[in-house]
Order: sequence, then structure tokens, then C-alpha cells
Amino acid sequence: MAEPSLDALIEALRRLPGVGVKSAQRMAFHLLQHDREGAQRLAASLQGAVKNIRHCERCHTFTESPVCSTCLDATRDSRLLCVVESPADQAALERTGSYRGLYFVLMGKLSPLDGVGARDIGLGQLLQRVGDGSVDEVIVATNFTAEGEATAHVISEAMKSRGLKVTRLARGVPIGSELEYVDLGTIAHALSDRR
Amino acid sequence: MAEPSLDALIEALRRLPGVGVKSAQRMAFHLLQHDREGAQRLAASLQGAVKNIRHCERCHTFTESPVCSTCLDATRDSRLLCVVESPADQAALERTGSYRGLYFVLMGKLSPLDGVGARDIGLGQLLQRVGDGSVDEVIVATNFTAEGEATAHVISEAMKSRGLKVTRLARGVPIGSELEYVDLGTIAHALSDRR
Repeated sequence: MAEPSLDALIEALRRLPGVGVKSAQRMAFHLLQHDREGAQRLAASLQGAVKNIRHCERCHTFTESPVCSTCLDATRDSRLLCVVESPADQAALERTGSYRGLYFVLMGKLSPLDGVGARDIGLGQLLQRVGDGSVDEVIVATNFTAEGEATAHVISEAMKSRGLKVTRLARGVPIGSELEYVDLGTIAHALSDRR
Repeated sequence: MAEPSLDALIEALRRLPGVGVKSAQRMAFHLLQHDREGAQRLAASLQGAVKNIRHCERCHTFTESPVCSTCLDATRDSRLLCVVESPADQAALERTGSYRGLYFVLMGKLSPLDGVGARDIGLGQLLQRVGDGSVDEVIVATNFTAEGEATAHVISEAMKSRGLKVTRLARGVPIGSELEYVDLGTIAHALSDRR
């Protein structure tokens, strides 16, 4: 390509996660050939989101207001605080309909190899959040990956040192699965955590 | 999510080809959390491309000028016209360094199931393009898929009826492949087209 605006568009699309040069080209061609209105709308919504979206002062999630609607919801149990990695994880927990407490969204996970330390995931804000004594129990709901577990460990230690009750989501055999096909680590956990 | 600007961004990202709701969420979170400057740049380049990019009057490809640089290149052989489906296909042919003629970019392929007929792929413009008598040979380089072959057939018939020489890229065994692993249709073609 020798068209600067097309090259610039492909280059900008490549910065999206999971998009390589072929996908970026395909997206650019699609938008220009079939969906110029979609391109305009994407441009406008990018600008709108960058302008309006900030972090909730209490739980650190994305919001347009100083404090998000979940944190402002007086019907929720403010003694329970569930710590998750991302708004998507929070949404998954909300969809279960079985949690009525509040959240803290780390917006990341510890990842020393990528240079992401405790400061980058808002651990300081979490300490400040639980510092007012309104929280009794911190439920650590980071992912069950190596990085999620490391993050859970660091958070648990920090919360325990402040005298808070810390729990972790149960590890075990997923609903609907056959033991034969479940990985050994999961079965071993389900055995030792049997009840 | 209950944040309108975040929802709007996720919705707009979903319109990109190959992007579902999970990828759109991941892209939106990534941009807002780690790359707001990238989001701004993407918005600006979308607007720039929509504003500046149009179709070349001669070959129908994307360009910022009335006629693209390839069509204006006086060193190229204007007796040869290679018909491709997309600018990406044109770029692949250019990278081989073994073609010095001109191009016509259909910007699509016949696809009756999707309601894409001969008009939508600029067949009329192609007829107009070859109508001035400057072209001797039309090389049909659409893809070797069902839709590409159908497109090639329609174009070949139209060109032949105008007395033009029509050729198609050779079908055969790809370089570096072992016969044992090549599909039977390809081997059959390579046999009948042996030279």
C-alpha cells in the first residue's frame, strides 16, 4: 500500500489486542468498502469512551460517574468485598445472581515477566478501600491461572495482615463434567477440599 | 455494563469483521486501561481514511488520488491487465516482483447466496476499462475458491465476447509440498495441465 491514510488506519487497528497485520488489513478494507458509517461510528465511540470513561473512586472499575452504580447501590451488602481482575470477571459473577456484596476491580494481574507489579494493579487503592473498616470479608476471585493465583496470594497476605477475613472461590470439578476428562490438578483439589 | 459510552464502544468494535462480543470487550478494556493514546489515534485514522480514501478511476482500488500510483506508472506494461478480488491479492502479486502489467481490483467476488451479483463487483467498470482497446490480455487472478472460480468464469466470458485474450493463473502443486499431502483435485489439475 502507498496510501498514507490507509496505512495509518491499518497500523492503528494492529494495536488492538489479538489483531495482526492480515486482520487489520481485512478490517480496514471491510470498513472502507462496506461499512463507512460503521467506521464513523467507531471513531465517535472511541472518542466518547476516552473522554467519558474513568475509574470508580471506590471499586476502580470503568464508569462515567465518580462512583459507579454498583458501589452506590444501597441494597448491596457492604460487609462483603469481592476482588476480581477485570470488569468482564465482575460481569460473570453478576450474571450468576448469587452475589449481593460489593466489588473491587484490580484492572490487571500481577505479571512480573511483563513488569506488572503490585502498584500497577491498584493494590494501594484496595488497601485504602478496606481501610475504613466497613468490610468484614474479602473474597478473592482472581482467575485460577498462575498469574491470578500469584495475585490472590499477594492480596490475601495484605488483607490478612490487616485482620480481615479472606476467602477464595472454591476450586473443584466443574458442573456437567465427567471425572475421566477433568485434569488431575482439579480432581486433587476437589478431593482435598471435599465436604 | 451500564456505562453508555463503554457499551457504545463495544457495540462499534463488534461490527469489525471477525470480532465477537468477547473480543470487543477485551479490545475496549485494553484501549481504556492501557492505550488511550492508541484509541485516539484509531479514531483519527478512521476519520482520515473515510474522508480521504476513494476508488481509483481506472483500476477501482483504494487510493487518495483520482487515479492510483500503479495506474499512473508509465513503466508498467499497459497491454496486460490482471483482475484480482482485493487490494490484498494485488499486494501479494506485487510482492512476487514478477508482474509488470496493470491491475483491476474487483473489490469483491460473485456470491449469489449473499446477494452479491455482477454489478456489485464492478464488472461494468471493468468492461469500460478494457473498452478503450489498450489491453491485449486479461489475466484472471481471482481466488481458487468456489466464489472466485465463479467470478473468473463470468469475467472470462465477458472478456472473450469482446475479443480479448483471457488467461487464468496456473493451478498446480504448490512449491515445497509433498504429493502425498496435496489434495486430489490439485494433483488432478497438475496432471492435466502438465507441461
